[in-house]
Amino acid sequence: MRSYRKFRVLALAGMMMALLGATAGPGATSDPLPAWNQGPAKQAILDFVRVTTDPSDPKYVKPADRIATFDQDGTLWVEHPVYTQVVFALDRVVALAPQHPEWKTTQPFQSVLAGDRAAMAKFTLKDLEAIALATHAGMSVESFQATAAAWIAAAKNPRWHVPYTDLTYEPMLEVMRYLRANGYRTYIVTGGGQDFVRSYAERVYGVPPEQVIGTALDTNYTYTKNGTPVLVRTQKVLLDNDLSGKPEDIYLFVGRRPHAAFGNSVGDQQMLEYTGAGDGARLTMLVLHDDAKREYAYGPAAGLPNSKIGTFTQALYDEAKAKGWIVISMKRDWNRIFRFGPATASGTP
Amino acid sequence: MRSYRKFRVLALAGMMMALLGATAGPGATSDPLPAWNQGPAKQAILDFVRVTTDPSDPKYVKPADRIATFDQDGTLWVEHPVYTQVVFALDRVVALAPQHPEWKTTQPFQSVLAGDRAAMAKFTLKDLEAIALATHAGMSVESFQATAAAWIAAAKNPRWHVPYTDLTYEPMLEVMRYLRANGYRTYIVTGGGQDFVRSYAERVYGVPPEQVIGTALDTNYTYTKNGTPVLVRTQKVLLDNDLSGKPEDIYLFVGRRPHAAFGNSVGDQQMLEYTGAGDGARLTMLVLHDDAKREYAYGPAAGLPNSKIGTFTQALYDEAKAKGWIVISMKRDWNRIFRFGPATASGTP
Repeated sequence: MRSYRKFRVLALAGMMMALLGATAGPGATSDPLPAWNQGPAKQAILDFVRVTTDPSDPKYVKPADRIATFDQDGTLWVEHPVYTQVVFALDRVVALAPQHPEWKTTQPFQSVLAGDRAAMAKFTLKDLEAIALATHAGMSVESFQATAAAWIAAAKNPRWHVPYTDLTYEPMLEVMRYLRANGYRTYIVTGGGQDFVRSYAERVYGVPPEQVIGTALDTNYTYTKNGTPVLVRTQKVLLDNDLSGKPEDIYLFVGRRPHAAFGNSVGDQQMLEYTGAGDGARLTMLVLHDDAKREYAYGPAAGLPNSKIGTFTQALYDEAKAKGWIVISMKRDWNRIFRFGPATASGTP
Repeated sequence: MRSYRKFRVLALAGMMMALLGATAGPGATSDPLPAWNQGPAKQAILDFVRVTTDPSDPKYVKPADRIATFDQDGTLWVEHPVYTQVVFALDRVVALAPQHPEWKTTQPFQSVLAGDRAAMAKFTLKDLEAIALATHAGMSVESFQATAAAWIAAAKNPRWHVPYTDLTYEPMLEVMRYLRANGYRTYIVTGGGQDFVRSYAERVYGVPPEQVIGTALDTNYTYTKNGTPVLVRTQKVLLDNDLSGKPEDIYLFVGRRPHAAFGNSVGDQQMLEYTGAGDGARLTMLVLHDDAKREYAYGPAAGLPNSKIGTFTQALYDEAKAKGWIVISMKRDWNRIFRFGPATASGTP
């Protein structure tokens, strides 16, 4: 009789686990990070989640404080040879040219319209700013988001011939999902444009707009001719969400210090410092681009010169070593980089 | 046999409902808004929640888009005779005076330290700004929040002799809880200081810091002498979260248009316009202070002159009528104003 009851209890437990498995994802025994090779980086993520979610652990973090922040360009998706948003801005110059006949004879627009790659390679920061403001300001917020969403749905990366949103790193998407499954809120904290990223972040990363913090233009609340309220994007940069702007804006938006932060360049240094300076368990990681075959390789830590895009200096590498930040080797730590293509240690993405 | 099965199914359903009731709050038949008298205001709230949460209703709103925004001063708690944060700032002048011997002979601080009520009543906006910046800037964000939290825990309102946080309106707390129980995220969108309100919002309103949008000083990411990163509050106002700043900052933080907005003054006008201009179901409400006995009465809609604090002009009242915004009469619509004291239609709070 007793063993029969025990059997029934076990059967019930099994049914419940099956039900839970069906609704809440893979069971506890399956690997939540299959695109990661065994190693210190993967282990650090698993250990961090284990200690911060175990109420009996001294490093337990209560759910309200479970905040993880992710840089985007170079951390969640490909940033070379140029940021995706720059490609968008250049495409917008071409699309908007009929409304701006003066651009045919005005730099930097003239070079873009002529497709003059040599001139474009020499663009100064001021040139790029002029292009960004001409293509990102002066319309309603809804109109801009619709334009960005339509572009990102249609544009394809010339190396891989897939949408840019397919060039997100599968191992990082796994980390985001794994953290969320353990009660973390995952924020994107990007030097890119807040509204540009918001136009696809929910679909691509599962990150809702209120959890995207980015470089932001000021908006102006005004009215259309028929009296409808409208928010118009101005040319004034309200938030420059890079370098020390990242911890400043995290505090502005969230009001809490993250427990985990992921970056890949000097623009993420202050975010990682700020995160790492909190007490208790903190996870601070930097993605190192050292896989020229499957993606790109750049920077001294990969044995190559500093890159203008996604700068990972020797000084940042030294600070990471000194502070115990974990450097993720794309080549060694990731058995798969993108969702498309076969999962191999190297050779294909 | 069939009726027996039906009985068992009903019994099981009853058990499940009892379980749900025990874990998820009052059942569907209990009144979620007991501090509200029956009337158009209460009915509008109930109707709004019903249609926006019923998947078969054409006005259904999916959970991700369920955003409700609340002004604080005069909408969620008492704002007369002066904003609570002004009392805090004046108290801080007194507390900080030993570190500022020059204040004894410098206006506007001299009048505050002398307790010169006549002079303080004549303070200009510039005087108040000087006091706000002297007491709200120049320290770390953690230090300011600790100071604000300690003050609000100890200070008492001179009319009611209770903590200021007891002067929150019970009917509005009911609305916030009711909306949250129905999948809405409730944001506080205040002209008051974002960090001041964040220091008690979770405890008092159940609103976490990332859902408090307020007037915000810029912060400066820097390092202490021993190299620890610190965010220091500067004297630069980054966000002036009043009037058209409210919809601008809602968009900045949330990236979505609210479906419900609650205010009480001209500072909330643009937030209500922006909310009401969206399609589908929108709930836009203004609290009218017309109960001098239990709280305060001010403004033309209460048959009284315009008030400098919580200005509710005739023009705002006319716009509310024209646009179908619902004006909440504290006197008629609320049978209880505060949690403390007996619940009566009038006479006591």
